[in-house]
Amino acid sequence: MADTKVYRAGTTAPVNIAVVKYWGKRDAKLNLPTNSSISVTLSQADLRTLTTASCATAFAEDSLTLNGELSDISGARTQACFRELRARRAALEASNAALPKLSTMALKIVSENNFPTAAGLASSAAGFAALVQAIANLYELPDSPADLSLIARQGSGSACRSLFGGYVAWRMGDKADGSDSKADLVAEASHWPSMRALILVASAAKKGVSSTSGMQQTVATSGLFKERIERIVPDNMISMEDAILNRNFAKFAEITMRDSNSFHACCADTFPPIFYMNDVSRAAIRAVESINAKAGKTIAAYTFDAGPNCVVYYLEEDKGAVLGAFSETLGSTSGWKAGVGSQSGVLDETVAEILRDGVTRVIMTGVGEGPIKTDEFLIDANGETAKR
Amino acid sequence: MADTKVYRAGTTAPVNIAVVKYWGKRDAKLNLPTNSSISVTLSQADLRTLTTASCATAFAEDSLTLNGELSDISGARTQACFRELRARRAALEASNAALPKLSTMALKIVSENNFPTAAGLASSAAGFAALVQAIANLYELPDSPADLSLIARQGSGSACRSLFGGYVAWRMGDKADGSDSKADLVAEASHWPSMRALILVASAAKKGVSSTSGMQQTVATSGLFKERIERIVPDNMISMEDAILNRNFAKFAEITMRDSNSFHACCADTFPPIFYMNDVSRAAIRAVESINAKAGKTIAAYTFDAGPNCVVYYLEEDKGAVLGAFSETLGSTSGWKAGVGSQSGVLDETVAEILRDGVTRVIMTGVGEGPIKTDEFLIDANGETAKR
Repeated sequence: MADTKVYRAGTTAPVNIAVVKYWGKRDAKLNLPTNSSISVTLSQADLRTLTTASCATAFAEDSLTLNGELSDISGARTQACFRELRARRAALEASNAALPKLSTMALKIVSENNFPTAAGLASSAAGFAALVQAIANLYELPDSPADLSLIARQGSGSACRSLFGGYVAWRMGDKADGSDSKADLVAEASHWPSMRALILVASAAKKGVSSTSGMQQTVATSGLFKERIERIVPDNMISMEDAILNRNFAKFAEITMRDSNSFHACCADTFPPIFYMNDVSRAAIRAVESINAKAGKTIAAYTFDAGPNCVVYYLEEDKGAVLGAFSETLGSTSGWKAGVGSQSGVLDETVAEILRDGVTRVIMTGVGEGPIKTDEFLIDANGETAKR
Repeated sequence: MADTKVYRAGTTAPVNIAVVKYWGKRDAKLNLPTNSSISVTLSQADLRTLTTASCATAFAEDSLTLNGELSDISGARTQACFRELRARRAALEASNAALPKLSTMALKIVSENNFPTAAGLASSAAGFAALVQAIANLYELPDSPADLSLIARQGSGSACRSLFGGYVAWRMGDKADGSDSKADLVAEASHWPSMRALILVASAAKKGVSSTSGMQQTVATSGLFKERIERIVPDNMISMEDAILNRNFAKFAEITMRDSNSFHACCADTFPPIFYMNDVSRAAIRAVESINAKAGKTIAAYTFDAGPNCVVYYLEEDKGAVLGAFSETLGSTSGWKAGVGSQSGVLDETVAEILRDGVTRVIMTGVGEGPIKTDEFLIDANGETAKR
């Protein structure tokens, strides 16, 4: 009798924001990086991708729907994820004849972000982490998060770090086949649970130079980049792990800011130069500097990915000073949670004006957990995309 | 009989805009740089400092008036210039008793720029070059421009390059006393007379971080800077001299742009980061890229000093394409000379809009000569500052 069942599994996966940045591939096909990196996984209560993976003999072909739009899945990266996951499922089926032959069925994946795509908010990281975890759940693979991170990495490099919660390293590895280039837990979220992040969304427009293309231009043309990957990042990795393990915020913050600066410096040194930060981003840096100066110690750290949004890391105990300074200026911007006070006189008036004009929303979040299995499905029991 | 005469001499001196940048001192007292640099001397028809140096027994104390305001001359840099020049004059007087004892008289210096001070237009370079040359003229020193450049360097590092016209290198030297850190002619203006510069003045406001302070912060904190001074700049020096000697504009342009990018990358990598360029500067880069793309070859090069102004180098033969693209957008901005056409459709509309909003004036100029002795005095025969 033919298997007419629709198999389903779901997961959510988090965004991660690097504090030691990934920028540069040594192998573009396998997404092998020129350097290791470290990120903080952000809470899924605020930012997450929700993905349902399903398969059925009735499905004609593999498909992926992202935020209501059918995605092109013919790309090598998505295909690599599908192929790797199917191979693992096929191995299980080969060793246990009782298992349904899911590896032979077409996959239907539906995915939704609760934040704008491609605005520099690491949506591809959460997206590929969720894709891989959802299919792994569907296939009931026994693989560990580190094992799955090897697959997610082939979809989008930084996605490998979203397989874990808390504080996560991506060890670059040195094998040519990439089998040792994967995510590694530095510390659980519970080790340092008071870490918070305030995201200043400077633009929700699609960015100019994609990070995939940008980082390869940097590798090919920046004269300063070699120094970053050979000396700066290895030093930052050691210091950052130490800062996290010892919950040393001042050290964590300084390395975060310096590493972000170093990354954007290499972008500016690319030929032609790549600029992800704009005048609003630079005003956010000045704001963080003012907050720290006012506090007389480092209580806030800025970092920027491949876009103008500023992520400000701070600790729960300093929320009054950090959030207060920003909400004084950005109080009428959407995204503030209840109970945020306001601190006048911290930000320079020019800085405040640029932020007021350029920040379109804020997101208040903090360190969080890795992918969470869910029964909230975006595909119904008949294999139809659920109406929402 | 007492000598009651007022002795006067005058000079003009040019601005120079580096194509391989000076950034970083290995000795802050002597203004010894971490790397060599190369600049183009700009025409004094458009940008110059006019300085009159005078001395008389009647003058009570040394003074310097700059653009109508008395300057503080107590700083070590100005004092070093006065001291060095007086010592040279004193040596002449010691060997020839017939010479008036100018070295014992107070100096009165009056200086005027025909462009805004401290707006990133290298005013200190022209200013110190003029100061040194004017006093050298007053003292009738036999020193060569290279000799005088040693003195001007102690006033403001890049001033040493304004003692020559044309294409000028500042050889960093390696002696501890700085006696080999001086300007050197790469080629006369007449060697490559078709070099032009269009300056897009993005702001005439005083800049935030002075270059003196900024470059020392970079030396102290940028992890990438070492690579710049040890490898990038030495390579650029060799390539740039070759490009100039062979009048190879495409090569000249690429090194100019890459070196400017590398310098600003090191500023961005400074902790805390230094940003001289703003969104207007970045739009100017995109404009130059569009002009080159449209031409199908490199006919324009951008470079930025320690401020947001863009200097665009191009050749006279390409003025139609280069000036035309900018004047289409900036036609109503002041500073255009007669006969500039306009080329539509070259610049992206977003870029054009940012330039229109942010460029306050343009300056059209080109390669020019070094200091020129003048009888146009800012101090009258009685030693009074001339009313103008």
